Amino acid sequence: MTPPRLTTSPQEAAEIAQITLERLRSLAIDGLVLYDIDDESDRNPDERPFPFLPTMDPAEYLARDLGRLEVPAIVYRAAGKYQEDHFRSWLEAQDPSDALTVFVGSSSREKEVRTSLARAYELRDEVQPGLPLGGVAISERHARQGDEHLRMVAKQAAGCSFFVTQIVYDVNAAKNLISDYHHECAAQDLEPAPIVLSFSVCGSLKTLEFLRWLGVTVPRWIENELSHADDTLDASFEQAVSTAVDLIAFCRRLGVPFGLNVESVSIRKVEIEASVRLATRLGAELRR
Amino acid sequence: MTPPRLTTSPQEAAEIAQITLERLRSLAIDGLVLYDIDDESDRNPDERPFPFLPTMDPAEYLARDLGRLEVPAIVYRAAGKYQEDHFRSWLEAQDPSDALTVFVGSSSREKEVRTSLARAYELRDEVQPGLPLGGVAISERHARQGDEHLRMVAKQAAGCSFFVTQIVYDVNAAKNLISDYHHECAAQDLEPAPIVLSFSVCGSLKTLEFLRWLGVTVPRWIENELSHADDTLDASFEQAVSTAVDLIAFCRRLGVPFGLNVESVSIRKVEIEASVRLATRLGAELRR
Repeated sequence: MTPPRLTTSPQEAAEIAQITLERLRSLAIDGLVLYDIDDESDRNPDERPFPFLPTMDPAEYLARDLGRLEVPAIVYRAAGKYQEDHFRSWLEAQDPSDALTVFVGSSSREKEVRTSLARAYELRDEVQPGLPLGGVAISERHARQGDEHLRMVAKQAAGCSFFVTQIVYDVNAAKNLISDYHHECAAQDLEPAPIVLSFSVCGSLKTLEFLRWLGVTVPRWIENELSHADDTLDASFEQAVSTAVDLIAFCRRLGVPFGLNVESVSIRKVEIEASVRLATRLGAELRR
Repeated sequence: MTPPRLTTSPQEAAEIAQITLERLRSLAIDGLVLYDIDDESDRNPDERPFPFLPTMDPAEYLARDLGRLEVPAIVYRAAGKYQEDHFRSWLEAQDPSDALTVFVGSSSREKEVRTSLARAYELRDEVQPGLPLGGVAISERHARQGDEHLRMVAKQAAGCSFFVTQIVYDVNAAKNLISDYHHECAAQDLEPAPIVLSFSVCGSLKTLEFLRWLGVTVPRWIENELSHADDTLDASFEQAVSTAVDLIAFCRRLGVPFGLNVESVSIRKVEIEASVRLATRLGAELRR
């Protein structure tokens, strides 16, 4: 999930956290991903289908409002947003037995970068080397550049012990990346790190457009299916389930450790509730 | 299948036909596709992994050696190879209640074309309009140009009543084409024509290279799987089955009529025999 908007009052934020914790209680999840949203309009010149609204610092939101979360949180850090001092103090305050993090680099080269991704990796190494660190893995980049598996191996060498993918709609692209990563690890005699595969429902064509804007490749046939469905949300739910089931079997066959992450890219209540149902369903698929 | 090489003696050709008919007897197939092989080296400047060896005219081979075939043959015609007179006489000799055909256009613009695809369509319309005509459907072209579904609709208007795809290894690309064709037919209030999906095993990396040379997109993860498999042929067999099962379910869900075609692009005996097993297996999947 993403933290509440920056403009949310402390009281409202506490209430949102309360509702969130209620929603999560039934889920038996192993962890909660807290995204750190950055304005990525410089990455993509197209109009953002949903307006960018700055959100609270996920680390602060976690510390202040999610104290009763019963599972570890994986706190994202858009490194470029933070001054090095701020980044360092946050690292110092972490308890490596309880916290996990994922550092994200800048969304474009033009952007002002306060702390580079490379520097963020160095700082963790120096200040808090025991803090479990995850890296982002993007099948779409692999489809374009063909070297995402090598980036993953390099991130592993720099300290990453797990990966989280971008939302997967293109099962073929995801298999290509997982397969290349698997074979690269075998060739280098490396233990593959767990890959957490991300899924999201899509309740409207606007959400679909937003997924695209975020960089998710939605295959033409899935776009057709969602556009012509009587119930787009239901269709995307079934779509996500079958994509996940396919990838679970694929990872198991290859022996690549994996996890599943469910998010909602929309703040509409029906989509958030469908995400919760999706998490329940995928949890059941995992235990089959 | 493809007819024997042009250099085969009449007696050898008769023996090959005999063996072929034996192989087919156990299969309960509905028809036999007879390809018309043309030298396509002008289409693809890369070295052809298997040398091009001209084959007999499939129509002549059928007439002379496959008289005991108990199912209809779908005879391909590489239109550009034939003078119009020859093409016309062949059309006149066909019995529309028993024969089917697929016309194929030239493989490149540089090639000498004796009869163009458009002219071939006209001739059928004029000489033998009742002869069931199929068109070629290529997902890979759809991935590049995005208009293969419109070509299919245009071919239908020109007389095609079914389609045969290129060999499918990229299930996503095939779904994109089938989905776009389905929705285009719905938009134009057209009955979709059956799409015959083609599958082939691949017993070696040389065959894989040849599939690529033919224009088949083999996704990276499948290439990895076949390259690292203990038994490439077995792995490709399982691959073909799961691709077919996925597409059978997809076509059924959309209500697109379909068929399955199994071929061997290699002349190695183990690959031909595996194709026969694949046909048996896919026949069973069809009847589920």
